[in-house]
Amino acid sequence: MARNSTARPRRIVGGDVGATKVSAAVVDAEGRVSSRGGPIRHGNEGPDEVIRDLIEVVRTSLGTGSPPAAIGIGVAGQVDAASGVVRYAPNTRWRDVALGARLSGEFGCPVVVANDVRAATVGEWRHGAGRGATNLLCLFVGTGVGGSAVVDGRLLEGAVNALGEVGHTVLVAGGRPCHCPGRGCLEAYVGGWAIAERARERVESDPASGSELLRRAGSIGAIEARTVGETAHARDPLAQEIMRETADYLASGVAGLVNAFNPGRVLLGGGVIEGSPELVEAVADRVRTSCQPPAAEAASVMRVALGSDAIIIGAAELARDRLRSPVRVPA
Amino acid sequence: MARNSTARPRRIVGGDVGATKVSAAVVDAEGRVSSRGGPIRHGNEGPDEVIRDLIEVVRTSLGTGSPPAAIGIGVAGQVDAASGVVRYAPNTRWRDVALGARLSGEFGCPVVVANDVRAATVGEWRHGAGRGATNLLCLFVGTGVGGSAVVDGRLLEGAVNALGEVGHTVLVAGGRPCHCPGRGCLEAYVGGWAIAERARERVESDPASGSELLRRAGSIGAIEARTVGETAHARDPLAQEIMRETADYLASGVAGLVNAFNPGRVLLGGGVIEGSPELVEAVADRVRTSCQPPAAEAASVMRVALGSDAIIIGAAELARDRLRSPVRVPA
Repeated sequence: MARNSTARPRRIVGGDVGATKVSAAVVDAEGRVSSRGGPIRHGNEGPDEVIRDLIEVVRTSLGTGSPPAAIGIGVAGQVDAASGVVRYAPNTRWRDVALGARLSGEFGCPVVVANDVRAATVGEWRHGAGRGATNLLCLFVGTGVGGSAVVDGRLLEGAVNALGEVGHTVLVAGGRPCHCPGRGCLEAYVGGWAIAERARERVESDPASGSELLRRAGSIGAIEARTVGETAHARDPLAQEIMRETADYLASGVAGLVNAFNPGRVLLGGGVIEGSPELVEAVADRVRTSCQPPAAEAASVMRVALGSDAIIIGAAELARDRLRSPVRVPA
Repeated sequence: MARNSTARPRRIVGGDVGATKVSAAVVDAEGRVSSRGGPIRHGNEGPDEVIRDLIEVVRTSLGTGSPPAAIGIGVAGQVDAASGVVRYAPNTRWRDVALGARLSGEFGCPVVVANDVRAATVGEWRHGAGRGATNLLCLFVGTGVGGSAVVDGRLLEGAVNALGEVGHTVLVAGGRPCHCPGRGCLEAYVGGWAIAERARERVESDPASGSELLRRAGSIGAIEARTVGETAHARDPLAQEIMRETADYLASGVAGLVNAFNPGRVLLGGGVIEGSPELVEAVADRVRTSCQPPAAEAASVMRVALGSDAIIIGAAELARDRLRSPVRVPA
């Protein structure tokens, strides 16, 4: 409970290293974002360039004010939480990048590096739609499907900090090939890339029904998940059918996860959900009707609340936690 | 670290309330079972009769020695851990039975009541094939499929103490009806009842291929999962095919769960695994080849070690824990 004795509150910065851009902001203890840096679109030329951009957006967010007390960064990749090393980030093609040490050397403060989905989950848990929950399952349905779980009041890590990859639970045994080594994963049906792929196949096999999708996209190869969602909202029968199937797959997958994880709250976010928010009600219905009764009664299904700021807010929270429990930082 | 000051170690009893029988034993701190009581087959006449039988087997296990310091009971059902109330046990048709209070009144010591799968997981974790693991996923494939998870060194509970019902993750979206309200659950393919059901359907649709299964069982309705496993071991082509499919379903399901839970160790137990232990290798192969690389590398797949004693040993461990942290017992 002891407070830092400086006159003004210690400033915490949260940052977000995505596949195409970096951004940062100062975040206060109530999860409010104040001054921002970026986003800067990076050319993905490698860790040195991206880290240079990241340092720039952190500096911009700090402005001329006091130096940061701690920094938290969310990264789309597998992270070794203790060392701050990004083990593997497929989108930016990083391997074993000591991001924490680099930033810590630059800014002279503790730096926490976390997987971006986990950071976003912490953001929603502390300051968004997950506030007050002790058992929370977050699913982010974007191009891929990421997830993270808070159970019994703790954010779970697992054996190698990879717990929560619920996009790769098997939804259709022996089904569609996934971008991971498996087949039939939830992501291979409801991830943005998979919705687009399913739609392209349908248009290819039946160009007449697919004429509206084709017209909007320009070519079969240009059909994206967003095209399908928008075309469904314009009441095109094929696009509506594809989105109904998507809702059905997502609902089945989440119902199974509710049985397995027994969450009090399930939060759905990511680009696919933002584009087609009606998916949330489809999932909620299925959880009510097809989960085991105790799990069904316990679980509320809702949308995330913080949007794209969730990563920055959550990363800043993790940095704030680190200041409270500095013993968790190994040498 | 303070030890009880009596000359002899405090005796802890573990008990097991199953669908058809009750049993108990004194279990020492190393997880060794000494004097046993039961099993007594109960007629499932209701909680009073079953609890009477349970008290009898606990007394028998204690013999003429000192009274128990604590008792732990594993029950096939949903349990409120804090109050010791069995909320719902479908097999024995119990609802809201205050088992903990009844036994505590009888024996004058703290009593811990736990779900049997969770108790068995604790048994394997502390004294069986899960020793030393901090991230453990246990699957018991019997008539149904139960599971439980230790993550980051803690046995997870979830919102209403139902975490780990991994038998009801969806393996085939829109697939076979399950005994739960859902469809396509892992249990609906690899649970003992489901293997039997799949075999009966195959024999019915193709009696010629099914002649050996039919001969061994006596009638289609008498085909059980055990019949299928034994007939497959006798190299009957249809039974072998059904068991190959079972291996394939189980492997897909577990691979998805390994991605989601990121365990360091996966333990497989239960009657179906005991009858067809070759399933374990099929699962291990699939985890190696089709999980996400970090999760695949982290996970070892193996059989449980304690057999049917796991529940008793784990329940006793939970009782021992309760003595160490009595504050966890609410009024």
